Amino acid sequence: MPETPDPGFEAAFDAAVQSLSEGGIPIGAALTREGEIIAVGHNERVQEGDPIAHGEMSALRAAGRQQSYRDTTLYTTLAPCAMCAGTIIQFKIPRVIVGEDVTFPGELEWLRSRGVDVVVLGDQRCIDLMRDFQDARPELWAEDIAE
Amino acid sequence: MPETPDPGFEAAFDAAVQSLSEGGIPIGAALTREGEIIAVGHNERVQEGDPIAHGEMSALRAAGRQQSYRDTTLYTTLAPCAMCAGTIIQFKIPRVIVGEDVTFPGELEWLRSRGVDVVVLGDQRCIDLMRDFQDARPELWAEDIAE
Repeated sequence: MPETPDPGFEAAFDAAVQSLSEGGIPIGAALTREGEIIAVGHNERVQEGDPIAHGEMSALRAAGRQQSYRDTTLYTTLAPCAMCAGTIIQFKIPRVIVGEDVTFPGELEWLRSRGVDVVVLGDQRCIDLMRDFQDARPELWAEDIAE
Repeated sequence: MPETPDPGFEAAFDAAVQSLSEGGIPIGAALTREGEIIAVGHNERVQEGDPIAHGEMSALRAAGRQQSYRDTTLYTTLAPCAMCAGTIIQFKIPRVIVGEDVTFPGELEWLRSRGVDVVVLGDQRCIDLMRDFQDARPELWAEDIAE
């Protein structure tokens, strides 16, 4: 029997698909508190011309000012880069659920070394979405990770 | 004789003062390329309700999409936090000029460990600006660094 879908992860995945449909980079994220989704975001480099708007950053911006993140979980379709990992550490977000780390390794070991609980789902939909994008738009992907 | 002011640093400092005059957090930043200022920004937590808009992040957002940051320098009035340090590393910005690290230590050692050239000016104007702000608005400062 399949597992029950996790609403936070599904919201992040849907945001990634939405971004692709807008001509953007297909990476999405969601922030939850006690199981409730409080914000969703996706990469907005193309849509807003904003280089800091990775999926995780967009979700945190959408959540607005918070007194604390200690009771939150961040979902993201792709392993967080150094910017997003640094933000997770700075904001003291205790738990991150990652769709996949196959198409980009991210900074998972650094997150763990700073006490963040990192769970990698190995979600095949996320892998396929990113691989297709990286194959189709290698120059845009290189720009997004400054390579 | 006093040293010639560095335009990048002065722009960052002016942005910090501007933010304070708007009721915001007095931290500013500027991005330069070959000595030319290409973007300036300041903390916008209060002004925009945006928790990811630290000074450095605002300057990078204002600079828009860049193919490369390898020939840029980032100026900031205060030592970069983990979010901003992670962004500097991810964007491969080679050099960071920091106004002061007295009122907040930031992640300078991490930046250096990842190959970033970090210069700390120990600028008394920056120290006074932050100390006065931290004394006047401790709750806002705590929120900005998630403490």
